[in-house]
Amino acid sequence: MLQTRIIPPAANAHQSPLLIKRLLLSGGRYEKTREIVYRDKFRYDYKTLNERIARLANVLSEAGVKAGDTVAVMDWDSHRYLECMFAVPMIGAVLHTINIRLSAEQILYTMNHAEDKFVLVNTEFVELYNGLASQLTTVEKTLLLTDTETKTSNLPGCVGEYEQLLANASAHYDFADFDENSVATTFYTTGTTGNPKGVYFTHRQLVLHTLALGTTVGSLDSIRLLGNSDVYMPITPMFHVHAWGIPYVATMLGIKQVYPGRYEPELLCKLIREEKVTFSHCVPTILQMLLNSPGAKGHDFGGMKMIIGGSSLNRAVYDAAKATGIQLTAAYGMSETCPLISCGYLNAELQAGSEDERITYRIKAGVPVPMVEAVIMDGAGKILPSDGETQGELVLRSPWLTQGYFREPEKGEELWEHGWMHTGDVATIDGMGVIDIRDRIKDVIKTGGEWLSSLALEDLISRCSAVREVAVVGVADPQWGERPFALLVLHEGQQLDAKGLKEHLKPYVEQGHINKWAIPTQIALVTEIPKTSVGKLDKKRIRVDIAQWQEAGSEFLSTL
Amino acid sequence: MLQTRIIPPAANAHQSPLLIKRLLLSGGRYEKTREIVYRDKFRYDYKTLNERIARLANVLSEAGVKAGDTVAVMDWDSHRYLECMFAVPMIGAVLHTINIRLSAEQILYTMNHAEDKFVLVNTEFVELYNGLASQLTTVEKTLLLTDTETKTSNLPGCVGEYEQLLANASAHYDFADFDENSVATTFYTTGTTGNPKGVYFTHRQLVLHTLALGTTVGSLDSIRLLGNSDVYMPITPMFHVHAWGIPYVATMLGIKQVYPGRYEPELLCKLIREEKVTFSHCVPTILQMLLNSPGAKGHDFGGMKMIIGGSSLNRAVYDAAKATGIQLTAAYGMSETCPLISCGYLNAELQAGSEDERITYRIKAGVPVPMVEAVIMDGAGKILPSDGETQGELVLRSPWLTQGYFREPEKGEELWEHGWMHTGDVATIDGMGVIDIRDRIKDVIKTGGEWLSSLALEDLISRCSAVREVAVVGVADPQWGERPFALLVLHEGQQLDAKGLKEHLKPYVEQGHINKWAIPTQIALVTEIPKTSVGKLDKKRIRVDIAQWQEAGSEFLSTL
Repeated sequence: MLQTRIIPPAANAHQSPLLIKRLLLSGGRYEKTREIVYRDKFRYDYKTLNERIARLANVLSEAGVKAGDTVAVMDWDSHRYLECMFAVPMIGAVLHTINIRLSAEQILYTMNHAEDKFVLVNTEFVELYNGLASQLTTVEKTLLLTDTETKTSNLPGCVGEYEQLLANASAHYDFADFDENSVATTFYTTGTTGNPKGVYFTHRQLVLHTLALGTTVGSLDSIRLLGNSDVYMPITPMFHVHAWGIPYVATMLGIKQVYPGRYEPELLCKLIREEKVTFSHCVPTILQMLLNSPGAKGHDFGGMKMIIGGSSLNRAVYDAAKATGIQLTAAYGMSETCPLISCGYLNAELQAGSEDERITYRIKAGVPVPMVEAVIMDGAGKILPSDGETQGELVLRSPWLTQGYFREPEKGEELWEHGWMHTGDVATIDGMGVIDIRDRIKDVIKTGGEWLSSLALEDLISRCSAVREVAVVGVADPQWGERPFALLVLHEGQQLDAKGLKEHLKPYVEQGHINKWAIPTQIALVTEIPKTSVGKLDKKRIRVDIAQWQEAGSEFLSTL
Repeated sequence: MLQTRIIPPAANAHQSPLLIKRLLLSGGRYEKTREIVYRDKFRYDYKTLNERIARLANVLSEAGVKAGDTVAVMDWDSHRYLECMFAVPMIGAVLHTINIRLSAEQILYTMNHAEDKFVLVNTEFVELYNGLASQLTTVEKTLLLTDTETKTSNLPGCVGEYEQLLANASAHYDFADFDENSVATTFYTTGTTGNPKGVYFTHRQLVLHTLALGTTVGSLDSIRLLGNSDVYMPITPMFHVHAWGIPYVATMLGIKQVYPGRYEPELLCKLIREEKVTFSHCVPTILQMLLNSPGAKGHDFGGMKMIIGGSSLNRAVYDAAKATGIQLTAAYGMSETCPLISCGYLNAELQAGSEDERITYRIKAGVPVPMVEAVIMDGAGKILPSDGETQGELVLRSPWLTQGYFREPEKGEELWEHGWMHTGDVATIDGMGVIDIRDRIKDVIKTGGEWLSSLALEDLISRCSAVREVAVVGVADPQWGERPFALLVLHEGQQLDAKGLKEHLKPYVEQGHINKWAIPTQIALVTEIPKTSVGKLDKKRIRVDIAQWQEAGSEFLSTL
C-alpha cells in the first residue's frame, strides 16, 4: 500500500457519514406546490413527507423495532413504500423489500432467511401472509397497510393500521448519525437454480449510487433525462432494487412523484395523463404491455422520457415507443449492482448523427456512468481488449456493488472472482467505452463451434412486422451441438412459419449481420411467452416447454 | 451509538474507495471530437488527456516524488494544471495549488508551511521563485512550465521542461488503490489577520463534492446549468479552491474544456467567441472587469451561463450581465467548503414567477445542495429559527468540509465549535430553505444598537446609475458606535456627492428597505477600490485608507 498522507479518524471527526437521511434533509425540498401522489388516494407536499417519515420512525420505534432489526414490506408501489425506504434505514434498521411476485414458498424462504422481525402488510397480501404465518421463524409483529376505510383485519400480531398510527405519532424524530457501512436494505434475487440469494446494500452505497444516478440523468446526455421540472412515476416495482433507486434521486431533487400501486395499464395511462408524468422506467415487456393496452390507444405520450433496463432493448420496442412520443434510453444493471452501471446516453456528437446511428447507441447498454469501471474478461481472469469485437464476460468495479450474499459467503467469493464483480453477461466494449451486451453466458447458443447471441437473433426477428414477441434459446442437436429455436407470439391476424421467418432473416444473412447457421430450423407459435417474476423471458421454463413439445410433436411447432 | 448491522472492513473488501482516478477512468470520455483547449497553444482529446496524465505520473515518479509528498504548482489556468489536478493525487501525493496573487513573503510562508518538495513553475514566475529559492526549506526539485520555444531557464533544481519530459515518458501508469481519506490537495486561505491558513481535502471529499456538484448543475435547476453539450472555461483561478471544483466535474462528464492562461479580458472574450464557451464562473468583480472591457463591447454572450460566487451578487451586476445575454446564478461557498454549499437555482414554480421574484432568488446564496445541512446559530451555539427574518451565523455540515487547518489544530477547533462548521457569515434562512447572506460577521455595522448589513447597503447604492463600484464599511463614531461609510467609483463623466447619494437612497428608506440611520453621512470618491488576491473587496485595507483620509482631511471625502 502506498504511504499516502491519511487523515486518521480522530482528525476526521466532523465528516458527515454518508447516510440516507442526508438525501432527505437537504436540497430544494420545501417547495409547497411539489407533491407526492398515490393513485387518487393521497396527495401531500415535501414538508409533509418529512413529517410522515419522522412519524413512521416513531411508530416503528414504539413498536419495538431497534437498530439492526430487519423490517419487511409487502406492498405495491406507494407513498408508504417511499416513506419506508427512508424511515426504516434512518433508524438504523434494515428494510427488506419482499418480492411479492415470488411463489409463496420462496417468499417464506426469503423472510426466514432475512430474519424479518417486523412486517408491514398490504390488505391485498394478508391472505398470503396468513398462509405463511405459522412457518415464519423470526417475525414478532406486523402492521397493516390499507387504502380502504376498514382499518382492521385478521393480520396476526398486528400493532395497528399505518395511517392511524402515523396520525397519532409525533412528527419529530431526532435521527442519529451512525456508521455509513451499516446495512440499509436487503432483497432477494431469483437465480435460475436454487434458492433466492439475499443481496444487501449499505447507507454509503445507496447514497453514492443516488449521487451518481443524479449526475447521470441530469448531465451526461445531450438532453436532460431527469431534472427539476419533471414528474416521476415508477413502472419498475419498488421491491425490485428500490425501483432502480430513482425514488431516492427524485426525493433528493425534490421533484413531483407519483406512485401507482399495482400496475394496471389503464390506471398507469390515466396517471400519466392527469398528473403530467414525464419520466418513468421499466423492463421492455412491461412497456410492451403498456403500449398494447386499450388505454394507450390514441394516447399522446409526447415529451415522456423512459429508461429501459432489466433486459436488452430491441429496435422494434424502441420504434413502437417512439411512435407514441416516448423517448427511450437503455440502461444496464442488475440486482447486485444497486443497479446503475451504464446508460445509453448520447453526447452532442452522437446526437448529431443519423437517426439509425442515434438509435443504435440509445438501445445499447451504453457507457459506464461516473465511478464505474467495466472491462471484459475471459474464463481464466484475463482482461480482454475493448475493440468492439472481442466477446468476454462483463466484469465491474464501483463503490456501490454488493459485497456478497447474506449468509452465503461462498457465493460471494464466486461473484468476486479475480477481484472484479462477475455479471454473467457476455459483452463487447468498443473504443468509446460503449458496452454491448451479447447474451447471458448461460443463454449463448454454441452451434457448430460458433457462439451465437440469442439476444441479437431476438432483435432481428422482432423487426418482422408479424412478430409481437420473441424468445430464442439453444436446443441440443446431435450434429451441431446446439441449434437456435425461436418461440414467437404474432400480432393478431398475422401468420408466420419457419419458412417465412427464414425469408425475413435472409437479408440480414446477406448483409453479414448473422451467418446462415443462425436461422432457426424450428420455431413455435404460442399465445404467451413465459416470464420470470420480474418480467424477463424465463428461458429455463422455455427450454422445458420446448423439450416437451418436441417429445409430444406439438402442433405449436413449425419446422423448415 | 446505535447497534446497526455494520459490514466489517473484511467483508467489504471489494468496495472501490472514493479516489480521484475514478472521476477520470469512467464516463463518456473517449469521444474523439471532445477537446481540452489551452489558448491557441494546445488542443487534444480525452484519450490524450488520459495518456498525458499517465505520462506526468511517470515523470513525477521518476523525479523521485513519492506518495505523501507535496507537489506545488505556480501556473495560470492551463491544461497542465488540469493534468496536475489528476496526476499528483492519483500517485498518492498532495497537490499544493500556490496562490500566485499573494505577496512573495506570503507565498514563501505557504510553501515552507506546506512542506513543498517538488515545484512546477511557469516561466512567468521563475523570477519570483528565484527570489524565494534560498529561503525554501523543503523543496528538492523543480520542473519548468512554458509556452515558448525556449525550453531552458535559470530555474534552480530543474529536472526539465514539462512537454519534453512528457513526450519521453511512458503513456501507461498503473494507478494503485489506497485509503480514500488520503490528502489530495492543499491550498491557503488569506484571512484578514495573521498568516494564511492551510486548508486540505481528501480524495473522498473531492469525489463526493464532484458528484454533488454534478447533480446540482445538471438536475436541480429548471434549466440545465451544465450538461454534456456545454463548453466550459473557468474564470476563477485553478489555484483558488480548484476553480471551484468544476474542472473535476467537466472531466467526469467528458465535456469540452478551455483553459485561458492569465485572465486578459480581450483573450477571454476571444476564447468565448471562438471556442463557443457556454459555461463559466467567477467572482462579481472579475465579471464587471470582463463586461467593462473593450473586447466585450457589442459582443453577444447569448446562451452563456455563469455561476457567480466568492462575494454576494448584486442586482446591478445581474442586470448588466443579462443585458449582454449572460444568465447568472449565484452560488455560495468558501475555501473551507470545497467550495459548494448552496446555489440560487430556480425550480419550475419559481421560474414561473415574476421577473423580479426570479432575479431575487437567482442572486441569493440559495438552497443547500444535496448532502449539505445549513442552519443559523447564535454565539452560544443555539440553533435559531429558519423564518427568513432571524439573523445568525451560518453553520454547516456536509461530507466535504475541511476538517481543520494544516498544523494549526487550535484553529480547526474554533472552526468546528459546537460540532458545526462556522462560516463567519451572518445569514437568514427562510421556510423554503433559501439562505440569504447578510454580511460577514466582522463587516456588520453596529449603529445605534441596530445591525446594519454592509452588503444590503452596497446592493442599494449599486443601483444608482452614476455608480460603477461600491464598498461600504463601518467606521467608529463616538455617538452611534459605528456609522456606515461608502467608498465609490463612478462611471466616466458622472458626478455624485454625499447629498446626491442620500437622494438616491431616500426612496428605499420610504419603502422600508433600510432605516434612515443606514444613509452614509460620509463617502469617498476614488478611482479604484482595494481588492484581496482573490478579487474580493479588501475591507481591512479600506478601513485603514479611510482612517488616513479622515485624519488628513482628504479631498476624496464628501460629507453630508
